[in-house]
Amino acid sequence: MADPNEVDQNENPVPETKVLAIASHVVYGYVGNTMATFCMQSLGLDVSAINTVNFSNHTGYKQWKGTKTPPEQIAELYDGLTQSRLLDFDVLLSGYIPSAEALGEVVKVARDLKLKRETMNPGSFFWVLDPVMGDQGRLYVSEELVKGYKSAISGGMEGPDLVVPNGFELELISGVHLAGVSEEDGGELERKPTGDDYEARLEKVREAIEVLHQRDSVRMVVVTSVRVHGKQSEGVLCVVGSERKSDGSSRCFVVEVPVLDCYFSGTGDMFAGLMVARLREECSQAGTLGKHGWGSDDVVSATDLPLAKATVKVLSSMSAVLEKTMEARNAEMEKYEKSNTRASVNPQDAEKERQEEVDEQNHFLARTKAAEVRAVRNARDLIHPKVRFDARGL
Amino acid sequence: MADPNEVDQNENPVPETKVLAIASHVVYGYVGNTMATFCMQSLGLDVSAINTVNFSNHTGYKQWKGTKTPPEQIAELYDGLTQSRLLDFDVLLSGYIPSAEALGEVVKVARDLKLKRETMNPGSFFWVLDPVMGDQGRLYVSEELVKGYKSAISGGMEGPDLVVPNGFELELISGVHLAGVSEEDGGELERKPTGDDYEARLEKVREAIEVLHQRDSVRMVVVTSVRVHGKQSEGVLCVVGSERKSDGSSRCFVVEVPVLDCYFSGTGDMFAGLMVARLREECSQAGTLGKHGWGSDDVVSATDLPLAKATVKVLSSMSAVLEKTMEARNAEMEKYEKSNTRASVNPQDAEKERQEEVDEQNHFLARTKAAEVRAVRNARDLIHPKVRFDARGL
Repeated sequence: MADPNEVDQNENPVPETKVLAIASHVVYGYVGNTMATFCMQSLGLDVSAINTVNFSNHTGYKQWKGTKTPPEQIAELYDGLTQSRLLDFDVLLSGYIPSAEALGEVVKVARDLKLKRETMNPGSFFWVLDPVMGDQGRLYVSEELVKGYKSAISGGMEGPDLVVPNGFELELISGVHLAGVSEEDGGELERKPTGDDYEARLEKVREAIEVLHQRDSVRMVVVTSVRVHGKQSEGVLCVVGSERKSDGSSRCFVVEVPVLDCYFSGTGDMFAGLMVARLREECSQAGTLGKHGWGSDDVVSATDLPLAKATVKVLSSMSAVLEKTMEARNAEMEKYEKSNTRASVNPQDAEKERQEEVDEQNHFLARTKAAEVRAVRNARDLIHPKVRFDARGL
Repeated sequence: MADPNEVDQNENPVPETKVLAIASHVVYGYVGNTMATFCMQSLGLDVSAINTVNFSNHTGYKQWKGTKTPPEQIAELYDGLTQSRLLDFDVLLSGYIPSAEALGEVVKVARDLKLKRETMNPGSFFWVLDPVMGDQGRLYVSEELVKGYKSAISGGMEGPDLVVPNGFELELISGVHLAGVSEEDGGELERKPTGDDYEARLEKVREAIEVLHQRDSVRMVVVTSVRVHGKQSEGVLCVVGSERKSDGSSRCFVVEVPVLDCYFSGTGDMFAGLMVARLREECSQAGTLGKHGWGSDDVVSATDLPLAKATVKVLSSMSAVLEKTMEARNAEMEKYEKSNTRASVNPQDAEKERQEEVDEQNHFLARTKAAEVRAVRNARDLIHPKVRFDARGL
């Protein structure tokens, strides 16, 4: 059998990898599988996508059309793969799932793949779970689904190998209250706490991660966005990760990235997709593919973890693409403003009001569209990121 | 407004392009939108995909699970795009469509986009139609759908700008009988005709293309596979294209590519996806974007057409990727044979027969999987093909 850590030096940094990706599909724009699939493919991964919804556009537009995939169709597609012996996946990436029933089917898929692949051949299968439930204090799925995620994550050996929640989702699954991410705090930390506050808050994040390590036996965790306001007035976004040591304790690293003044949809999916590729690359270089859960020895320090190195690369790619997206967005909106001057005729008040509403709605839609992440156009930044950040131990 | 022919020299050979792609989705492997979307994205195009089916795998496996998208859901997704003002497409690529009703919805989409984009701004919208109906003499859609395609193609200004049938489909839509592609000829030409036969057969293809130019006013046609056996004993595949002159006559070019000894699924979708990108690139360089139907002047010779140059690049990419796929397939099957030696126990005859059937089926599935086109792993050949062929005038 080929060494799973072997890399095709001339072509791709990531060893051959087959991914089953279960998440949403949108026709226009980049979120869910539409984002994650391209990110993984651009790094040479073969991606098989089961789409949990088929929507015209992402929900940030506040209106969309299309359908949710019934849970039994998820099961049926997996049956189709099974009957044609198409289960040679190295990774399962599960993202947005619309209901507790659908999650039930995804968990069955994950367990079946673990059983078939991992039992015979340790390290041959890895499940990355993005528990998409909400953001900035707002839950956008059912309580039933939250329970489902908690149960899936506590699956131990049958559970996910890496979980990538945002700060709000970390709070939901760990049960640890993190100042600044729950609803009553308005979804983000107050401005400019003292340096001590900053460290104390990261300490809370570590505590929550340790709950997942110890209570749920989750090996790897990366919290993709903990918004804190430290010394820099513009604010930073902290990304905190850890790989469990054999005694269940954490070894946390943190990477700080500047906050851009724009809301982008699909960044969680971008993070997860790129992470699959980069973690596979880093574990291949560290020689840990083929070990259960691609695990590093206890002696490896937090910042030397493949997970930490992968996180730095992923964030470097994202930051470059998002900056370029913001530039393109600004140019697009400037053009929009010029070509959409409001009518200067003197309409009746009621008509005027109606026209203002239409203008406002069109402006909102144009802004949302302009902020669609320019992932495809900037694939080079996905493939060859200039490293911009570093990880420090916590 | 930005010049549509302007190219971002540092990054992408193809100017910014938004494509609406309506075709099939499979979870595992590369056909339909799963193939075409990646091909276009790898060349920097933004692709919005409406999936006409959601199947576990392509039909070459002879078994699959999943669902066809009901025609009204295609309409609903397009309504969703319309209500959120997400119709800024430069190209529509339509591929596999499962029913005449679904084709009806796609034609409505095409007409609406032509009306909204093309009427105001000539050259701003282009429809590439792949009339997926069958191959090598075998029809795999309803007669109703064949009628639907004929009607769609004869739409004149409202019809497709480029049609990319294979030889069999060309026969169906033109009504011209081409020796060697219809059912009674067994789906391919006899071996080694004389040189005259070869030219006479290409002449028939030209006749059929001229029917589309004159009767249906289709501006551009590329016939993606006319299998002929010329001087080379291993056989060649002829790709014949033409752009209509203003008097309705053809200017045909032909590119000959060697036939590989392996059946690949999804090559038609690969051709169509790459063609969208390369035609846009070549028309941009020739300065014909912004002209109705991206048309070239009558003085441009067949081999100087953007369509001819694009075809050469597309076929060079495909040939490189398919060769590498065949190598990888052979290696995979060698491994398969080694690890799947038949049981040497002496079973009862009935049991033995059953076991042989299972072995045979598993071998068939393994062969089919091994021939899945390695598009993602060889993206470099899509982006930077070494030109291997040339076009000659017919």
